[in-house]
Amino acid sequence: MPEPFELTACEALSLLSRRQLSAVELIGSCLQRIAACEPVIGAWTWLDAERALQTARQLDEAGPSGQLHGIPLGVKDVIDTADMPTGYGSAIYDGWRPAADAGCVSIARRQGAVILGKTVTIAFACGAPVRTANPLNPKHTSGGSSSGSAAAVAAKMVPVAFGSQSASSLIRPASYTGLVGMRPSLGLLSVAGFKYFNGSFDTIGLLGRSVDDVELLWCSQLDVPFQAGEMPARRASVAVCRPPWLTAAHRDGQAAIDVAERRLRQAGHEVRDLVLPADYGGIVQVHERMQAFEAARSYAFEYQHHRDKLDAVVRSIIELGHAVPFEEYLEYVRLGQKLRHEFPALLGGADCLLTAAASGEAPLGWQALGSAFSNMGTPEQSRPWTLLHLPVVTVPCHKGPNGLPVGVQLIARYGEDRDLLKVSRQLSEVLAERTTTQQGAI
Amino acid sequence: MPEPFELTACEALSLLSRRQLSAVELIGSCLQRIAACEPVIGAWTWLDAERALQTARQLDEAGPSGQLHGIPLGVKDVIDTADMPTGYGSAIYDGWRPAADAGCVSIARRQGAVILGKTVTIAFACGAPVRTANPLNPKHTSGGSSSGSAAAVAAKMVPVAFGSQSASSLIRPASYTGLVGMRPSLGLLSVAGFKYFNGSFDTIGLLGRSVDDVELLWCSQLDVPFQAGEMPARRASVAVCRPPWLTAAHRDGQAAIDVAERRLRQAGHEVRDLVLPADYGGIVQVHERMQAFEAARSYAFEYQHHRDKLDAVVRSIIELGHAVPFEEYLEYVRLGQKLRHEFPALLGGADCLLTAAASGEAPLGWQALGSAFSNMGTPEQSRPWTLLHLPVVTVPCHKGPNGLPVGVQLIARYGEDRDLLKVSRQLSEVLAERTTTQQGAI
Repeated sequence: MPEPFELTACEALSLLSRRQLSAVELIGSCLQRIAACEPVIGAWTWLDAERALQTARQLDEAGPSGQLHGIPLGVKDVIDTADMPTGYGSAIYDGWRPAADAGCVSIARRQGAVILGKTVTIAFACGAPVRTANPLNPKHTSGGSSSGSAAAVAAKMVPVAFGSQSASSLIRPASYTGLVGMRPSLGLLSVAGFKYFNGSFDTIGLLGRSVDDVELLWCSQLDVPFQAGEMPARRASVAVCRPPWLTAAHRDGQAAIDVAERRLRQAGHEVRDLVLPADYGGIVQVHERMQAFEAARSYAFEYQHHRDKLDAVVRSIIELGHAVPFEEYLEYVRLGQKLRHEFPALLGGADCLLTAAASGEAPLGWQALGSAFSNMGTPEQSRPWTLLHLPVVTVPCHKGPNGLPVGVQLIARYGEDRDLLKVSRQLSEVLAERTTTQQGAI
Repeated sequence: MPEPFELTACEALSLLSRRQLSAVELIGSCLQRIAACEPVIGAWTWLDAERALQTARQLDEAGPSGQLHGIPLGVKDVIDTADMPTGYGSAIYDGWRPAADAGCVSIARRQGAVILGKTVTIAFACGAPVRTANPLNPKHTSGGSSSGSAAAVAAKMVPVAFGSQSASSLIRPASYTGLVGMRPSLGLLSVAGFKYFNGSFDTIGLLGRSVDDVELLWCSQLDVPFQAGEMPARRASVAVCRPPWLTAAHRDGQAAIDVAERRLRQAGHEVRDLVLPADYGGIVQVHERMQAFEAARSYAFEYQHHRDKLDAVVRSIIELGHAVPFEEYLEYVRLGQKLRHEFPALLGGADCLLTAAASGEAPLGWQALGSAFSNMGTPEQSRPWTLLHLPVVTVPCHKGPNGLPVGVQLIARYGEDRDLLKVSRQLSEVLAERTTTQQGAI
């Protein structure tokens, strides 16, 4: 019998519904796990054990209610909570208490989730690296900006967590920590109460250790009935994409695609190559410059009034944004609209596009490199798909030379989130390497 | 020589730049005007005369800086200000102080604008009517939800103001009060720090008494150089639209279109009829139900925790939103995407689409009807264009049987905001009825 903290959300729900596990036991087990791992990992900016246990007691007394009844949840600290400080990863907002929970938090609570606390984020989801360690090897980074949420789920401190993605902030850390991560189609999950960064890209992201758990989170936000384990009627057809921004230097990212393609073919999936049209040539920079243009306006107050406390990386993004002329920005907006419109035809009859979720394994982090610098990897593998507003799921696939995971991301047409989750469940069984516990892993 | 409060922003800027007017004189004059009119109009929830005069003194000492140097500005109270309370029109947020100015406010301040205070809004930009009177006839409503901003500009308390539009909240009150109003293309102006309502529709709107002033505001937000009075190279070609949601009962709205068409033809403009395709049939309800679906998620916290203090109309929108299934919502999202993609072809060679900005004149308001009920008009004339994300400018055109204005709205392709402003300037001269002061007007 595993410890409660080891359960996925769906496994826990099953026991909770049969009264073979109480919410208090589950939360208590997760809190013990946090106490054990947190000193090494550094996933949390705020924990509220007492409140969580109290909520769990109330849920146990009231009996099953919503789709997340009794499930422990981590919330990235760029997402507002009325009863916990929300600092957006920035000294400017140290100890700030918003007036309201973000929409996604309030919905999760209505569905019975228990928020254990706030997880580490890099400043405003785009600043300098943070010290959150990778639970698979604490010398390495957990990535960012959803650093704490990814680390907390990977270390089994919580089964599920909210992150966010405006560039690569969810898919990359999920890949680094061997998780299932999802960036839903832009606009489907409410970003009310998310610290506004890019109206064009901001998305609440979902993290779990199984496709089921991620789908459960997605359904609970949209009041859609959830059924675990649903599969497509036939073997998914996959368009494999080796984009120009996956360069020769990204050997582990390339290897992940090669491995995925081989396993899919062996399992009898229809696989074809997808070659991107010329319009995709400069798309990584297009996303980066659009993002900077918008950030300069979103963070105008912080830049005007708190420049000294502003993270240096955030400041540089704002200043890049000041240098992008409106006419150039508008060209990028139009290119995004065009590519979005053309994407269904590009994907053709395939069920999803498959490419690398990150350029490689999680790089060495703070602990290994000292405090003078660090490395959280680079965002280019996700920027284009974020620009296209498409639903993306990453699942583990390959392991690199350090034994750390490199995921692939599966990308579907806009709005096909639910179908993509079913395809991801089917493919994840084919793609996953047999699990071997990593030396030094938590 | 007019009093300073009577000047448009562009007229004032011209005098300010030549030192024939000081910012202190201009702000002082506006404050006197507010003192005289506010008891009848009720446009403001918060005024900060001392801070405004102090800012004006600093601007006078420092000399010309940004594009809005010394210009008084009203800010709708769904837009965050760090130094003034921000109540979102709701008892739940009475006295709330956000941590930061909204992006648009911070940018306006950097450009030299002086925020006089916060203007009345209906709750969360979608609640029950408010008591703000129409300066053209205080027995009538100023409309909503940008009630206070429209009334303040129309009463010459300020030359310009920020409103917002997620359905018809800017164009309708602008029409009722005889103003020039603009809803820019969705996403071009940052909505950071706007009380999140609909990610799919929320837009900062601009109000002034001339096209120049509205264009000045638009340019200042995007760091685009502003040149007053620019016109298209040739007479604009106009596609006149009499949509199915402008019913036989909307005689004044229909008359506004007839009057506009006649004047345009007389002035030698190319005019053609634009007939909407069948897809537009249920579009008013599509927008309404999409909006409710999103509102139910955006205001999840307020609904869970402050239902007793929640405006009854907001509550009913949330409850409608709970009743809209996700699959239906997704169909609406897809319809919006389709119509957006097809709109340029629908507009064809025309420079803009012209239709009624409201169904008619401003209805009788609180003062006339007593406190038991009121009427702010209906939103159907704007919902479809809001759904389409298009830039819209309203200019005055017709006067109804009560002598109150009925505007027309001019609608261009996505991103053609600047061209639309030039066309609006040209057409406004043709469309405007010769001004006669309304009896009882302030």
